[in-house]
Amino acid sequence: MTSLVLTDISQLTADGFEKLPDQTIYDVVNVNMSEKPDWLFDKNPNGKVPVLEVDGGDTLNDSFVIAEYLDEKYSYRPLHSRDPWKKAKDKLLIQLFNKVINALYKLFLDPNNLDKQSVDNIIGELIVFEEELDARGKPFFGGERPGMVDYMMWPWCERSDLLRIMGGDRWCLSKQKFQKLMEWRNAMKEDDAVKESYLEPTLHAKYFKSRLGGYPDYDIRV
Amino acid sequence: MTSLVLTDISQLTADGFEKLPDQTIYDVVNVNMSEKPDWLFDKNPNGKVPVLEVDGGDTLNDSFVIAEYLDEKYSYRPLHSRDPWKKAKDKLLIQLFNKVINALYKLFLDPNNLDKQSVDNIIGELIVFEEELDARGKPFFGGERPGMVDYMMWPWCERSDLLRIMGGDRWCLSKQKFQKLMEWRNAMKEDDAVKESYLEPTLHAKYFKSRLGGYPDYDIRV
Repeated sequence: MTSLVLTDISQLTADGFEKLPDQTIYDVVNVNMSEKPDWLFDKNPNGKVPVLEVDGGDTLNDSFVIAEYLDEKYSYRPLHSRDPWKKAKDKLLIQLFNKVINALYKLFLDPNNLDKQSVDNIIGELIVFEEELDARGKPFFGGERPGMVDYMMWPWCERSDLLRIMGGDRWCLSKQKFQKLMEWRNAMKEDDAVKESYLEPTLHAKYFKSRLGGYPDYDIRV
Repeated sequence: MTSLVLTDISQLTADGFEKLPDQTIYDVVNVNMSEKPDWLFDKNPNGKVPVLEVDGGDTLNDSFVIAEYLDEKYSYRPLHSRDPWKKAKDKLLIQLFNKVINALYKLFLDPNNLDKQSVDNIIGELIVFEEELDARGKPFFGGERPGMVDYMMWPWCERSDLLRIMGGDRWCLSKQKFQKLMEWRNAMKEDDAVKESYLEPTLHAKYFKSRLGGYPDYDIRV
């Protein structure tokens, strides 16, 4: 299968997951989301990324739908639990994390919103994840290795240092309050799939700065 | 397994799906969503229905997460396609239908919004479903039998006659434009699972009227 993954720099690309089998060839195309090209709407009427295009031109959109598709299609190392109950609980956790993503994205795109209230809201949501990780008693939400929850959360946790860069040290998470998430973050950075797509916070900051300036450097990784 | 399904009258209840195996016993508890009881927030911090509670008190929320859980747990007649690509496409279709649900719900809860523009918006969204059903060339989105898309859409299509009751015949869908969806609707009404939970449009209208009046008759089916 040949696939084309349309993404912008701020999205998890397919290589953020474990390497696909060798016979799977895919290209990544970064898209300027500030001035969307017309052809993007042919691939996805919503005009959003990511988009996965396969042989024959058929496409999927929505990062979670794409992630679950890849997980089912290439099932040699499933990211979702095989236990339907655990899988359902993980899906709810991913839904809940969308609140954190939305709040973070708003801050990244308009740093004027960066005040105590908005950061407190994010911290309030994150406590659920700290408690859940503690309750699971393993280094990752997926257990001994990262699973679907870990990989769906990661791109936004990788960017969380942006808050510190944008707002100074007072926006750091409390190490006492978020001990488990801090350990999780360090462990995630050692994961092969994460390493492969990892960008330094300063590079993320550079991208968002270019985007705020009206000229997003969407090929910043290239 | 004993389950408790918390729902209000306007939600699909678990018995809207094919009958669960005989050893599965579940109770349905209807909830007054205008004056939510405190215990609902113990079952689901969001305070939304449906909620599925299993032995031991653990819960799931979100109608689609619950539906997928039941589909995986009781897999003797899967509602989702086993083909990951088809399944992913169906999930996108269900996401798209959420736009119709949101638009319909707004109209049901505030009939003052019932104008040509809002109905045209719904019709615009529904055309995608008419074309998709036509392209699939089968009576149901799931093929020869209803599948996940069919059952996720159905509760709202069952209620669509409310528009006619509320707004008169001018809000009927065009039989020429929506021939496939009309045939689908008639076929769905013959499905055993649909029959079991089917409510006449006049009963739906009575419920929404009671809700608009401030005293929702949430046990209207009992």
